[in-house]
Amino acid sequence: MMSGKEYLESLRAMKPSVYIYGKRDPEYYSHPAIAPAVNAVRETYEVAADPALDPELHVLAVAESDLTGGKINRFNKIIQSKEDLAMRMKLQRAMMRRTGGCFGGRCVAGAVINALWSVTFDVDAEKGTPYHARFRAFMKMVQEKDLTVAGNITDAKGDRSLPPHQQPDPDLFVRIEEIRPDGIVVNGAKLQQSGAPIAHERLIVPTTALGPKDEAYAVAFAVPGDAPGVIHVNDTACANAKFSMMDAEDIGNAEFGMHQSAHIIFDHVFIPNERVFLCGEWKASRDLVHRFSDLQRLASASCRCGHIDLCMGAAMAMADYNGVAGKAHIQEKLVDMSVDAETLYGMVAGSAYLSSPTPSGMYLPETLTVNAAKLYMNDAILKTGQRLAEIGGGILITRPTGRDLAVPKIGELLKKYHQGRAGTDTMDRIKMARLAESLSGLSGPTTILSVIAAGPPATQRLNFRLLSDFGRNRKAAERLAGVVSRK
Amino acid sequence: MMSGKEYLESLRAMKPSVYIYGKRDPEYYSHPAIAPAVNAVRETYEVAADPALDPELHVLAVAESDLTGGKINRFNKIIQSKEDLAMRMKLQRAMMRRTGGCFGGRCVAGAVINALWSVTFDVDAEKGTPYHARFRAFMKMVQEKDLTVAGNITDAKGDRSLPPHQQPDPDLFVRIEEIRPDGIVVNGAKLQQSGAPIAHERLIVPTTALGPKDEAYAVAFAVPGDAPGVIHVNDTACANAKFSMMDAEDIGNAEFGMHQSAHIIFDHVFIPNERVFLCGEWKASRDLVHRFSDLQRLASASCRCGHIDLCMGAAMAMADYNGVAGKAHIQEKLVDMSVDAETLYGMVAGSAYLSSPTPSGMYLPETLTVNAAKLYMNDAILKTGQRLAEIGGGILITRPTGRDLAVPKIGELLKKYHQGRAGTDTMDRIKMARLAESLSGLSGPTTILSVIAAGPPATQRLNFRLLSDFGRNRKAAERLAGVVSRK
Amino acid sequence: MMSGKEYLESLRAMKPSVYIYGKRDPEYYSHPAIAPAVNAVRETYEVAADPALDPELHVLAVAESDLTGGKINRFNKIIQSKEDLAMRMKLQRAMMRRTGGCFGGRCVAGAVINALWSVTFDVDAEKGTPYHARFRAFMKMVQEKDLTVAGNITDAKGDRSLPPHQQPDPDLFVRIEEIRPDGIVVNGAKLQQSGAPIAHERLIVPTTALGPKDEAYAVAFAVPGDAPGVIHVNDTACANAKFSMMDAEDIGNAEFGMHQSAHIIFDHVFIPNERVFLCGEWKASRDLVHRFSDLQRLASASCRCGHIDLCMGAAMAMADYNGVAGKAHIQEKLVDMSVDAETLYGMVAGSAYLSSPTPSGMYLPETLTVNAAKLYMNDAILKTGQRLAEIGGGILITRPTGRDLAVPKIGELLKKYHQGRAGTDTMDRIKMARLAESLSGLSGPTTILSVIAAGPPATQRLNFRLLSDFGRNRKAAERLAGVVSRK
Amino acid sequence: MMSGKEYLESLRAMKPSVYIYGKRDPEYYSHPAIAPAVNAVRETYEVAADPALDPELHVLAVAESDLTGGKINRFNKIIQSKEDLAMRMKLQRAMMRRTGGCFGGRCVAGAVINALWSVTFDVDAEKGTPYHARFRAFMKMVQEKDLTVAGNITDAKGDRSLPPHQQPDPDLFVRIEEIRPDGIVVNGAKLQQSGAPIAHERLIVPTTALGPKDEAYAVAFAVPGDAPGVIHVNDTACANAKFSMMDAEDIGNAEFGMHQSAHIIFDHVFIPNERVFLCGEWKASRDLVHRFSDLQRLASASCRCGHIDLCMGAAMAMADYNGVAGKAHIQEKLVDMSVDAETLYGMVAGSAYLSSPTPSGMYLPETLTVNAAKLYMNDAILKTGQRLAEIGGGILITRPTGRDLAVPKIGELLKKYHQGRAGTDTMDRIKMARLAESLSGLSGPTTILSVIAAGPPATQRLNFRLLSDFGRNRKAAERLAGVVSRK
Repeated sequence: MMSGKEYLESLRAMKPSVYIYGKRDPEYYSHPAIAPAVNAVRETYEVAADPALDPELHVLAVAESDLTGGKINRFNKIIQSKEDLAMRMKLQRAMMRRTGGCFGGRCVAGAVINALWSVTFDVDAEKGTPYHARFRAFMKMVQEKDLTVAGNITDAKGDRSLPPHQQPDPDLFVRIEEIRPDGIVVNGAKLQQSGAPIAHERLIVPTTALGPKDEAYAVAFAVPGDAPGVIHVNDTACANAKFSMMDAEDIGNAEFGMHQSAHIIFDHVFIPNERVFLCGEWKASRDLVHRFSDLQRLASASCRCGHIDLCMGAAMAMADYNGVAGKAHIQEKLVDMSVDAETLYGMVAGSAYLSSPTPSGMYLPETLTVNAAKLYMNDAILKTGQRLAEIGGGILITRPTGRDLAVPKIGELLKKYHQGRAGTDTMDRIKMARLAESLSGLSGPTTILSVIAAGPPATQRLNFRLLSDFGRNRKAAERLAGVVSRK
Repeated sequence: MMSGKEYLESLRAMKPSVYIYGKRDPEYYSHPAIAPAVNAVRETYEVAADPALDPELHVLAVAESDLTGGKINRFNKIIQSKEDLAMRMKLQRAMMRRTGGCFGGRCVAGAVINALWSVTFDVDAEKGTPYHARFRAFMKMVQEKDLTVAGNITDAKGDRSLPPHQQPDPDLFVRIEEIRPDGIVVNGAKLQQSGAPIAHERLIVPTTALGPKDEAYAVAFAVPGDAPGVIHVNDTACANAKFSMMDAEDIGNAEFGMHQSAHIIFDHVFIPNERVFLCGEWKASRDLVHRFSDLQRLASASCRCGHIDLCMGAAMAMADYNGVAGKAHIQEKLVDMSVDAETLYGMVAGSAYLSSPTPSGMYLPETLTVNAAKLYMNDAILKTGQRLAEIGGGILITRPTGRDLAVPKIGELLKKYHQGRAGTDTMDRIKMARLAESLSGLSGPTTILSVIAAGPPATQRLNFRLLSDFGRNRKAAERLAGVVSRK
Repeated sequence: MMSGKEYLESLRAMKPSVYIYGKRDPEYYSHPAIAPAVNAVRETYEVAADPALDPELHVLAVAESDLTGGKINRFNKIIQSKEDLAMRMKLQRAMMRRTGGCFGGRCVAGAVINALWSVTFDVDAEKGTPYHARFRAFMKMVQEKDLTVAGNITDAKGDRSLPPHQQPDPDLFVRIEEIRPDGIVVNGAKLQQSGAPIAHERLIVPTTALGPKDEAYAVAFAVPGDAPGVIHVNDTACANAKFSMMDAEDIGNAEFGMHQSAHIIFDHVFIPNERVFLCGEWKASRDLVHRFSDLQRLASASCRCGHIDLCMGAAMAMADYNGVAGKAHIQEKLVDMSVDAETLYGMVAGSAYLSSPTPSGMYLPETLTVNAAKLYMNDAILKTGQRLAEIGGGILITRPTGRDLAVPKIGELLKKYHQGRAGTDTMDRIKMARLAESLSGLSGPTTILSVIAAGPPATQRLNFRLLSDFGRNRKAAERLAGVVSRK
Repeated sequence: MMSGKEYLESLRAMKPSVYIYGKRDPEYYSHPAIAPAVNAVRETYEVAADPALDPELHVLAVAESDLTGGKINRFNKIIQSKEDLAMRMKLQRAMMRRTGGCFGGRCVAGAVINALWSVTFDVDAEKGTPYHARFRAFMKMVQEKDLTVAGNITDAKGDRSLPPHQQPDPDLFVRIEEIRPDGIVVNGAKLQQSGAPIAHERLIVPTTALGPKDEAYAVAFAVPGDAPGVIHVNDTACANAKFSMMDAEDIGNAEFGMHQSAHIIFDHVFIPNERVFLCGEWKASRDLVHRFSDLQRLASASCRCGHIDLCMGAAMAMADYNGVAGKAHIQEKLVDMSVDAETLYGMVAGSAYLSSPTPSGMYLPETLTVNAAKLYMNDAILKTGQRLAEIGGGILITRPTGRDLAVPKIGELLKKYHQGRAGTDTMDRIKMARLAESLSGLSGPTTILSVIAAGPPATQRLNFRLLSDFGRNRKAAERLAGVVSRK
């Protein structure tokens, strides 16, 4: 397994095309808009490689693989039991508590890997295609080399009311442009992909359930980050990213805690056959999207529990600095946060317990539960931010910057007027305020991004309409009301 | 195992003291205020005894016992695994969907049985007392004879701000009045106990964590319903009970669906030693109350899922009768109900998955999750009732009664003016409206009762204050903010 | 102006056809299912007639009329200014605080009177019809004789997705059956009408906006309660009404506090021309329904403020009896109730302040505000009930009845075990628990009824879709975003 | 009255000490972190000066003064009637809809001016002090010269659990350091003051109700922005401010829409007597803070209505660009936003209608209503942001920047992949997404700032505990329950 240092070196060895704020940057991995995300991914390597760093987290981060017969990073593991789902859940929460922000979208990758694993199995069983064997070989390589994969989902989409083949521009969903004997050529883009330029491999799948006329859009494949025609444009419009343009001392937890994503353009990219995992099987897209979504909801909801944990911690610290730690209304808000975290965690655990295996042996969380968790999460994250902001106060948004504090005399006066309770350190208060600002979402979409990007609640609600056994419920009511006989 | 018929006969063979609306009634079991509850308990026997009645429910209702080595009713089973918790959860939801109301508080009994099982084990291990062996013998007898047990918890309590020993009247919590060589004499009352006069055995435990001066109140024991000095007063003040005073045809689902509870007065009752399971061990009360609560929350939250299922069913039927089944705002409300049911169910499943064994081997649901479920349930039940009422409309509360419909000419006019969509039956509409009224809580506390009686939310929230690992969260935040070193 | 006693005598002088629980009752006004409502209406007379009874309320209850030139009961007044709206608002809140329940639907009557006043004015202005003059004469008579009017709105409706003229049965909305030289014959029914058999006059108007083919349903008229063919069937299916069948001592506030409504059947009823106020003018129905609704929302939302006031009072009393008055979580709930009451009251006051005159001079509350109030009220009432129940505890639903308390020895034991904090009276605690049960909605639809009967929230929300100036908002956004020029 | 251009010139004529991101900037008014706020204040001059610019807004922006006898800008007017409150309400909403962000805190100034006007009147009446006359002269000058005033409230506060005189550092609240014959010397700081360096005058008042030992902190005074010892440090830590560091094309509505605030340090500043309006009268601080708060809540709640208006507009535009304008779930969210806007507006109008005059003639909004509005606003703003973000989608946070779009070929590809529905302009979509990001709070505290800075909800709730007439409510309940006699 790779060490953190080896991960950094492996990035340096790649030569992907990455644009940041209008310029191509060959050393993109050390650019301040990207470095925090690289650091967070590095941490996923370090906790797995070094048992001493955080023994509790190490146990969660390492798994056995029956593909390689050895130890692998759990983020690359096929989910083969309820326990595997539970370990993911625990890993996501603990890892989030460690980095305070997205660790390169490794959760998304896990969801894509497992969805594709199970769907290729089903397609092959029905059609005799070679996709599952190809994907198994790909995943064996990924596990053995301990690579980071980025799952790429979200197409450009154009007019949201039209299916891919009806869009005026045919490229608004990634499509097969040409089928050659040795591979395919794809064209299109995936937007706002977390962890996009800092993973070794990209795994591309459709973003929506396709119809029979969308055959050209039913494509899944893997491509390394530096393949010809793959272009990354980092999201510097994102508020959080803009912080990176400021001096490091103003950022607070500059090491981690900044969400990073990029647009990826596939500019007529050739994909060799052994890396093509679906090619025209439009019917499979429904299962693929559904399984991906449910797996990703389990991961992101778990992650948000760790986020709320950190918000409680930051709130407690701010309350203490402000001299109000013991106040009843502060305590109430902390309890509210805890209730939200455990409600969410309980639902995720429930979806793991009620999970069931797909034909490939991959376990899928119970869909209604995990979608309910996603819906709950949307509100919980906003309320958590609001509670943290109410506890922390105005300093979360209006503080002196490092440059202001460095001005002679003025800096001293600013420190004087930002002191908190006697016995607490003013600079600690300012640092914690910056962390709280970031966690609360006041400085931008660190966490809100994925809440929204993971699909609007209307989509999650659809499941309840389709899957709730309304008919059975009506029968039970009719029996009780005496409308139909009880016997 | 008893058949439903044998259960009814066994009630007739008992001679408990039961007062209903100001009169002692020897045939209390057939009084209209009690009969629906008897019917619901009878159903718990029938589904277990007869596999053909409801095969799916039968599987849930029957369990293997390692006390008797044979099949028993699951409501009397010791919970010895995560699966046992999950089976309870499923049984509660399915049973509720069948009876549309409380089945004699058998969930409460299950919680008391399991809490006492585990706590007597712990007390004996520490003090060498004989309680667990006694209780094991009692439960073996209960399982073999297939008896119904009623758990009795809620004391009179007097001034809620004072512990038992400081109350001006010493009897406001059930207490040991006298210790004799062969047993003890107890005095006091348990109020509003579900299923109180219609169970064979009562199992009495303290309602609150006790202090060292409350030794006389640390008592647990079993007593049959017709023991001398045990007096039941049925709750006819309860709105729902009052319906029973009306003609049967007005009640709708007269067979089930009416909550029933009673006050039980222990008027200087002698309890022989072999039925005494705690006697002065005040320290054990904390664990006992905590374990009872968590087990009961798992059961009642599961039960509410079945309640919401029925509400969805009734809402669909009413919308159909009213001619608005397909409207978007109706569909939205049905989805809301389904989201609530699955959120609750997911949390309960999560608490089972995260459960852990007590020293006796009895499994306890994860406490934060199951308390979060209880808090969620409080609001969900109210909102469900509101949604059902909004869908059903005014007929849920103002309908002609059976007597009105029987008046010549007037009755025909009333039917004419209560017709719904062409092709639906007016009497079906009226019956379903009555069921919907009952389910929605508009006619009284069928379900709200247990929401409230199971303890105010403030109590459930306490757990979060006590058990949330706030300190760990603060440390994680401090590390990330750079307030303490990351290493 | 009538005294309370004269009102009672006037009811005795009428001979309406009233059925209660399957029997025609000539002394319906003293039947326990109706008497509390009669008492509440009597109170509206007494506070107006006797300044000494409640000076503050007297000022609100009496108004000057420019029809009669003298003092009248404000419930019969035409609303001619913002101040008139504000006085209504204050009267409703104060009156509710006095009776704890519906005072015979006099609010509904006020809304019908004023809507019809303004709409007949508009129709006459357009068409030269004589309706407004007729209605003016009718109202002068009502004011002079100080009569109670019941507004009758809600038709049977049948299939809710069909307009009146498409219903399979033509009578599912009240309709003009025949037009004669001297008047019209009407047929149909109005369901669940508050205060129906205990008012001197009924004022009938359509329940929905009508289309050109619904001409026969565009009818408004007045009819006395004992006119031939008018049949009342009291709503004894209603949970609250059933209480009245019990002994008075169990009811608690037996004098008031029980909602009452009835179905009214118009069985081929002749209406003389001078009492016909619309006859075929279907276009006017839209304004009529809209104005009625907005006026009624102002009244009912004000009334609910008084309801929440009482709930706060009952909650404080119960908390005190229970010994927990000072606890933080009790105080929080009281504050929550107060916030809800003042939010609602503020919105109603706002709708009065932003009101505008119709051509007749009648003032209409601002429609978006008053509909927002109605939507807020729906949730507020439910939450208030929940809070009161949580504070009050299980005694709100399970108490001994008066008959139980009268059993020798048993009654004494029941009192012993229902005592609260030392120094408080047990019977007071039981009485207050009964009031709290009623207010909280646990015993049935005292207040929920009108929340639902006043139309599902989907209807109120429609206004926002229709009336919000979405286009202007979009333009403002486009200007700011630079999509269109700022100039 | 000043024109917009004259306002800009007047800023250039002042020489205040303003630090921005670590440097003193003499041309602070044109710095990109401040210019948008200057533009918004300029707009308050322009709409008042030029009737043709926006006739509807002009009427609201101009008022008559009985101090000057002429026309003045309404932001400087003394509120002397219900209508004055209503005009403020309308002005705030309309102005917000125009600028999409804070117009230099002129609302805060209005609240301070009116609170101080009334409190100085009361103090003088009691003590014979000359404060009101001084303040009247000051306000006459302000109105005549048409100056902008900034209200300065929020002290540094240190340990929030300690009153000013117990803080270890005496300067954590602005204090009187020395009293001289001709004036006073003050020391301390006001933090995060909206519009701080871009107003002509600052009006300083205490931030909290003071006790007898806090006499030195009971000080109110006016000071021009360029008085010796007055130092401004702009809040560049604020996420929104950071945007200003980026290229203008990325900001979207660069002209307005960015919140700006600054810390103001009073470094031993001399204030001549004629500008001192309170000096040691600690008792007056309670009324001053209370009146300021209620006036400010009226203004900020009105402003938020305009904010929600704009969010609706931006949501409609984004839905249209995305091709989903007609979808039911989009329409529902728009309706939700409209309900929130009108609920808030209704409450504000209600607080104006229920307002009452202070002894000076200044009108104070009804306190419970306006505080309820503030509480409602907190949640409404967050939900509005969430709804806008859900409608707008991921482009609100991850878009290409202007620099990215300018890269040859890459820019074209980015545009291709960000197109929406056919017939809409991609650049319009990107611009609107930026506005929506800003409005939704995703890019930082544009609106959240003032929600939080205006005090935590716990403070607003206090009013309900103190002012709700709980005793009267309890009596009403006791009378109805029969606990006390009804007579």
